[in-house]
Amino acid sequence: MPKYRFNNDYSEGAHPRILEVMTQTNLNQEEGYGNDSLSQQAERLLKAAIGNPGATVHFVSSGTQANLIVLASLLKPYESAIAAVTGHIFVHEAGAIEATGHKVNVVNTPDGKLTADLVRQVVAQHTDEHMVKPRAVYISNSTELGTVYTRADLESLARVCREKNLVLFLDGARLGAALTSAASDLTLPELAKLVDVFYIGGTKNGALLGEAIVINQPALQTDFRYHIKQRGGLLAKGSLLGAQFVALFSDDLYFELARHANATAQTLAGGLKALGHSFLADPVSNLIFPILPNALIRFLEDRYDFHVWCPMDEGRSAIRLVTSWATPADKVNEFLDAAKTWSERGS
Amino acid sequence: MPKYRFNNDYSEGAHPRILEVMTQTNLNQEEGYGNDSLSQQAERLLKAAIGNPGATVHFVSSGTQANLIVLASLLKPYESAIAAVTGHIFVHEAGAIEATGHKVNVVNTPDGKLTADLVRQVVAQHTDEHMVKPRAVYISNSTELGTVYTRADLESLARVCREKNLVLFLDGARLGAALTSAASDLTLPELAKLVDVFYIGGTKNGALLGEAIVINQPALQTDFRYHIKQRGGLLAKGSLLGAQFVALFSDDLYFELARHANATAQTLAGGLKALGHSFLADPVSNLIFPILPNALIRFLEDRYDFHVWCPMDEGRSAIRLVTSWATPADKVNEFLDAAKTWSERGS
Amino acid sequence: MPKYRFNNDYSEGAHPRILEVMTQTNLNQEEGYGNDSLSQQAERLLKAAIGNPGATVHFVSSGTQANLIVLASLLKPYESAIAAVTGHIFVHEAGAIEATGHKVNVVNTPDGKLTADLVRQVVAQHTDEHMVKPRAVYISNSTELGTVYTRADLESLARVCREKNLVLFLDGARLGAALTSAASDLTLPELAKLVDVFYIGGTKNGALLGEAIVINQPALQTDFRYHIKQRGGLLAKGSLLGAQFVALFSDDLYFELARHANATAQTLAGGLKALGHSFLADPVSNLIFPILPNALIRFLEDRYDFHVWCPMDEGRSAIRLVTSWATPADKVNEFLDAAKTWSERGS
Amino acid sequence: MPKYRFNNDYSEGAHPRILEVMTQTNLNQEEGYGNDSLSQQAERLLKAAIGNPGATVHFVSSGTQANLIVLASLLKPYESAIAAVTGHIFVHEAGAIEATGHKVNVVNTPDGKLTADLVRQVVAQHTDEHMVKPRAVYISNSTELGTVYTRADLESLARVCREKNLVLFLDGARLGAALTSAASDLTLPELAKLVDVFYIGGTKNGALLGEAIVINQPALQTDFRYHIKQRGGLLAKGSLLGAQFVALFSDDLYFELARHANATAQTLAGGLKALGHSFLADPVSNLIFPILPNALIRFLEDRYDFHVWCPMDEGRSAIRLVTSWATPADKVNEFLDAAKTWSERGS
Repeated sequence: MPKYRFNNDYSEGAHPRILEVMTQTNLNQEEGYGNDSLSQQAERLLKAAIGNPGATVHFVSSGTQANLIVLASLLKPYESAIAAVTGHIFVHEAGAIEATGHKVNVVNTPDGKLTADLVRQVVAQHTDEHMVKPRAVYISNSTELGTVYTRADLESLARVCREKNLVLFLDGARLGAALTSAASDLTLPELAKLVDVFYIGGTKNGALLGEAIVINQPALQTDFRYHIKQRGGLLAKGSLLGAQFVALFSDDLYFELARHANATAQTLAGGLKALGHSFLADPVSNLIFPILPNALIRFLEDRYDFHVWCPMDEGRSAIRLVTSWATPADKVNEFLDAAKTWSERGS
Repeated sequence: MPKYRFNNDYSEGAHPRILEVMTQTNLNQEEGYGNDSLSQQAERLLKAAIGNPGATVHFVSSGTQANLIVLASLLKPYESAIAAVTGHIFVHEAGAIEATGHKVNVVNTPDGKLTADLVRQVVAQHTDEHMVKPRAVYISNSTELGTVYTRADLESLARVCREKNLVLFLDGARLGAALTSAASDLTLPELAKLVDVFYIGGTKNGALLGEAIVINQPALQTDFRYHIKQRGGLLAKGSLLGAQFVALFSDDLYFELARHANATAQTLAGGLKALGHSFLADPVSNLIFPILPNALIRFLEDRYDFHVWCPMDEGRSAIRLVTSWATPADKVNEFLDAAKTWSERGS
Repeated sequence: MPKYRFNNDYSEGAHPRILEVMTQTNLNQEEGYGNDSLSQQAERLLKAAIGNPGATVHFVSSGTQANLIVLASLLKPYESAIAAVTGHIFVHEAGAIEATGHKVNVVNTPDGKLTADLVRQVVAQHTDEHMVKPRAVYISNSTELGTVYTRADLESLARVCREKNLVLFLDGARLGAALTSAASDLTLPELAKLVDVFYIGGTKNGALLGEAIVINQPALQTDFRYHIKQRGGLLAKGSLLGAQFVALFSDDLYFELARHANATAQTLAGGLKALGHSFLADPVSNLIFPILPNALIRFLEDRYDFHVWCPMDEGRSAIRLVTSWATPADKVNEFLDAAKTWSERGS
Repeated sequence: MPKYRFNNDYSEGAHPRILEVMTQTNLNQEEGYGNDSLSQQAERLLKAAIGNPGATVHFVSSGTQANLIVLASLLKPYESAIAAVTGHIFVHEAGAIEATGHKVNVVNTPDGKLTADLVRQVVAQHTDEHMVKPRAVYISNSTELGTVYTRADLESLARVCREKNLVLFLDGARLGAALTSAASDLTLPELAKLVDVFYIGGTKNGALLGEAIVINQPALQTDFRYHIKQRGGLLAKGSLLGAQFVALFSDDLYFELARHANATAQTLAGGLKALGHSFLADPVSNLIFPILPNALIRFLEDRYDFHVWCPMDEGRSAIRLVTSWATPADKVNEFLDAAKTWSERGS
């Protein structure tokens, strides 16, 4: 029997209500390439949820695709994007951004969050045409370390971006988990007002695939479909993406799923804290990074699938545990029981 | 009420048997990024169907994505691909191939098919480092004009490719329709033996999305997943693609759907021929291009959706009619009745 | 002893007056990367010659470099350049433009000249995001066939560019020969007013290397040095380029050299016409394409170096003869004598 | 009167013996694009100096051009180059490498030198297709901090490269200064044996422009001229580059000039040490980085041009002083006198 997987939030397929909309609309004849009625309905729902009727919305297949298309659309050849050293575009996209011709300027941050000061430092270091010219600021919310941006964080980044003529682009592959985190004081419309471009991730929050790119700034909206097409991101049956976002943004499903993911992760975090373990970064969303004794990690690895993130000291490492809309409460409890058992029997 | 659409083969969603496999496996926990059990099962089914156990199979989301990833993997920066002037990569991909840095060398062909002689001419014209160096030959089967390659055609292209050190790459977005065409004398394994890389199109033959790239030549297989990832083509929930190809390559579904698409197109073609109309290219698959009086075209446009392809002479134009696995016989008959009515009433 | 070369206009080094300025200023300490006093002086001389004080001027090393830097600066990723099928960027730059990510849309023209109608046709064919979006019009003056644009030609192109929101970019690798051609009714300031960006070729008109890019439109001037640097075109010792253009644009040297090149070519053309030969394109500048019997071509090839351009019919081919500032009158006369001798002795 | 410049080694034009060869051969008719007799003679001289008759040699215009052409030729789309954080390709080329589609993996080093251990760490961190695949190791000798690689350093790097299937590429923009440094125990042939590709810088050692790329590994030599042409680096009058390297590699001129540059820098370094100043990095070549009181720096800035590199502590900063083949001894002495005067008068 396979081990239960806590290693990501995309191990299962789609939430049943998403499959339902797909199935119900399956045999309708629709216009191709995203001009179908479901994509249009999804766009309306999203614009209402965001509170910006002037935004444009485009659906693409994956986070890497969203990132490379957005950045390729934003940047002139010599312009670059600023990102945290943990940023998905810097580490985990096989050089996708560079393949579109652009450098990623990277800064170290302890918690995966960019700050206005870090952005200012990068801009200050790039003074003339012998260097690239930073133009976009890339942040992930929640971050790759599971942390989230507060309103004050975003306001401060938005301010430095206006000041330095930078575009603020938010990777929301896990935006649901971010906005429903107890550590977040932001609503979707509030967040949307503070960024120029962002996307709302479907894949990691219950969809089969699909990220909804939202472009707030009219100047950045021009000809965006050309960019999608050129990078191979325009699906012939675009209604596949539209249908899923119709389901996600009906009856609050999107945030309901995210709340479940967060809640199960919080149960895990609480249980591990109670056992005396600390964390690599504040465990506030559905990605948590407990620091555990290596022997306990080996014990748990025999029973569960998860990533060992990095060694911390002689005897301990941080691991990454991820929950999702599909994580059952009993698996979380079993995991905690296993950890407790190991602790009680004196390691 | 919307008009019935004959304008493409991707107006509907998935064939029900595909949705079924997706639904049944929906809640299984799977490894991400194409390493799931369904993709592995699909790979086994495809390798068996192709008859090449040494091939590697990769699933991506769209035809443009398949084309750009394959060509980016095959070509050094100064190398180019030879294509017909009607080739999808030359006209209809928003410069996707050029965006990966490569020129497409284009040749005129009346029927959308490349020939060995045309390939030889392009190679002969490229003599030194002031020009690009042709390295790949790109063909579509069926072509963008609905014609198909015969065994002799492919053998002759394969020969010139070996002779000139070119890689033969076949875009099989409509491979089902090609191989089940009465004009084709090729089986899938026979075709596979003659090309270096090709893909088997799902999107235009019953899948929601998905193209199965097959790499026959071991030297071209290295690190292919890096290319997919870098271009944003690696889906987190890769089982979505695997599941669909499992369905398509079980119980001959793939070819069954293609036969239906061809048969309905042949009924249309036969009916229009019977009314005295000729064709831009031989109508042998599910894309047909009847040449009709402009007044008849206007009459039909009020009742059906289809593309007007190009003007032919003073009073006539070619239109494009496309059928699919989902085209009902009665819609075809109604279309022919309409055309007949118009003819009988003396235009 | 090597054969005399009529095969291009860059067989010799620099005109002595250019070497002189270089030698005189050789040991001055100068700011690097084009910010030296000679480049600044050259910029002033060029802006005066052009009659546009608002232009910016940048010096780069080669025509291919100028073309790729200018087009990379003008085009968004999905935008393309329209060019004649003989255009240098389409054929003879090893895919340099495509390597920056852009397609070249090509049209057939008998004489190497683009027309407003041809431009309109290309624009009309590109209707949506499945295709590239033409944005720049690339012309060469003189063309690769030695023909030149008249004022009416350029006005008509400028008009269609304004109308269709296209940028008109003129490759002036042989601009000296174009403007001093008897077939040209344009001055440099008149030409400069009609195009958005162009360059004044040094390499093929007496310099060791160097093309002066002139950007007339303020909106296109932003950050251009970043583009030059990024493509490896910013020379540390930029004064090498500045010094040469100071020499070329002092005392009318630039046009004096071009007039000499044209005059020697006209002597050749006149002599060959007198012997009854016709031409592939009107011989009006320093590139001429006489159509000669193949036996005569072989006879001349034993004595001179030149390109055989293309076969014309059973027994004749077009050859390309090129003269330059350095071509001595006696070599031209000897060539004509040889041709005459061959004709007189009854072939 | 302008201040004397210690800010780089390319403020003056060419060494007189270089200009002499250029002038003497100026009016010879030569084949274009690097196929001239001078480039061929230079190639022979260089291969003899390197001691590798199987190498190929190509001349290009600038260091950035050499770097981007070489790396674009070495790397597949998903492959990357490892460099020091001070590496020219990482900081000072306006994203030239990224513009060819490739990521630069960067590591911190105190002295600008990469080590085998640092290379191993980068390789170890790149484990699968979600990340780029390091393939080239880029080092500069001398480094951007004026330090030099010893034989042991290079042997160790060459070993890790063989072990990890990496290509070792050495940027020799200042190779003359490196090999004639007292800190170097390498000859040119010894160095050449240890690297796969490198270039010998002309621009910063007495030439007007020109870097000689040497490709030792036969497998990396294929079609290299295509790469040069595609990036705009093939000069029509290639003899301009050939002539300069003929001069540089005749009568030991190349190393003679480098020795002069090093000697003047050593005088500067010795004088500043004698005044009690320390250095950011060991001053062993023609780039030195003394750490001086800010008030002294301001005093010197009134008299000389040089770069202030970085603040070190409250009251002191590192500056960069560069000497060249053209630096006169008296300017060095005057500079030291000024520094001494300032110190003596009690700051």
